Amino acid sequence: MKEIISIIRMNKMNETKEALSRAGYPAMLCKKVNGRGKKMINMDILEDLIEGKEISSPEVLETITEKGRLIAKRLLTIVAPDEDVKKIVNIIIEINQTNNMGDGKIFVSPIEDAIRVRTDETGELAI
Amino acid sequence: MKEIISIIRMNKMNETKEALSRAGYPAMLCKKVNGRGKKMINMDILEDLIEGKEISSPEVLETITEKGRLIAKRLLTIVAPDEDVKKIVNIIIEINQTNNMGDGKIFVSPIEDAIRVRTDETGELAI
Amino acid sequence: MKEIISIIRMNKMNETKEALSRAGYPAMLCKKVNGRGKKMINMDILEDLIEGKEISSPEVLETITEKGRLIAKRLLTIVAPDEDVKKIVNIIIEINQTNNMGDGKIFVSPIEDAIRVRTDETGELAI
Repeated sequence: MKEIISIIRMNKMNETKEALSRAGYPAMLCKKVNGRGKKMINMDILEDLIEGKEISSPEVLETITEKGRLIAKRLLTIVAPDEDVKKIVNIIIEINQTNNMGDGKIFVSPIEDAIRVRTDETGELAI
Repeated sequence: MKEIISIIRMNKMNETKEALSRAGYPAMLCKKVNGRGKKMINMDILEDLIEGKEISSPEVLETITEKGRLIAKRLLTIVAPDEDVKKIVNIIIEINQTNNMGDGKIFVSPIEDAIRVRTDETGELAI
Repeated sequence: MKEIISIIRMNKMNETKEALSRAGYPAMLCKKVNGRGKKMINMDILEDLIEGKEISSPEVLETITEKGRLIAKRLLTIVAPDEDVKKIVNIIIEINQTNNMGDGKIFVSPIEDAIRVRTDETGELAI
């Protein structure tokens, strides 16, 4: 079993949740987090802004203003059998890839056991 | 060492915390999360409701109304030596098993090291 | 790759964030959590308080009042290559070690893969 942890934009949460449910993965956890990646101010974009050029998206604007600050993000966690990881990762990428900085990251980590409290079921039966 | 991650009902948090403390596991983390499992509306319960039959518990009522929505839950994390995992899992099940949907899940994942910041102690000494 | 999870004091968050950024680790996640360690009321400190002796720090005062209750903490998560773990742990200790109870803990757990959503990059390229 693996835990698939996605850090995504707040405004992509509902669409991601629905796509995963439709694909057969309704069980998930969502947490509010603040985070940042490695990006710094992109000077080309800043020059475009100063020169009055059109900014392509709210995400670009977000990038300009965020140097060093943490941004409100959503963390979505799914536990799945090993063989479903690739499919789940692809669904998350399909919904969240806008090609702008801040699209997010996905981490995969090992889960050794799962237990459903109501029934005492363990392992893949419990997820 | 293992991390024992429980997703439980909000109203079971205090009792669970106290039971774990009494058993010798006072060190823990609690986060607010939103989550859901695999459950869908249970049509038998819905028919009982329409026919005016008594609903057995608030948990059942909660189940009826929650299709597809995430529910406010509590996530409780404990780090423990490998040999204590079964005992801790059993304490959590004992407090949280109501036999209604939504009782929650427990996940066990590996922790490779722990460090107590105050003393630089590492490994099981630090948990 | 490893996940380095630190539970630290709220008022150490900014300084820790800045030290990690300066050292080349700007990518991080921050969550609000409530937690406690193993500490109980320290009776020596309580006697000092009753006798009117000076209390050495706000942290000591915090310790006296917290028996059994969870305390608001910050959880800071960084994903890094294996060889950077020791350096990152040392930075976190340097900023957060006050020698008072409540300085926090650091856990290290395995991450099997990382994916940057924008570019589909995987592994260490994605962190």
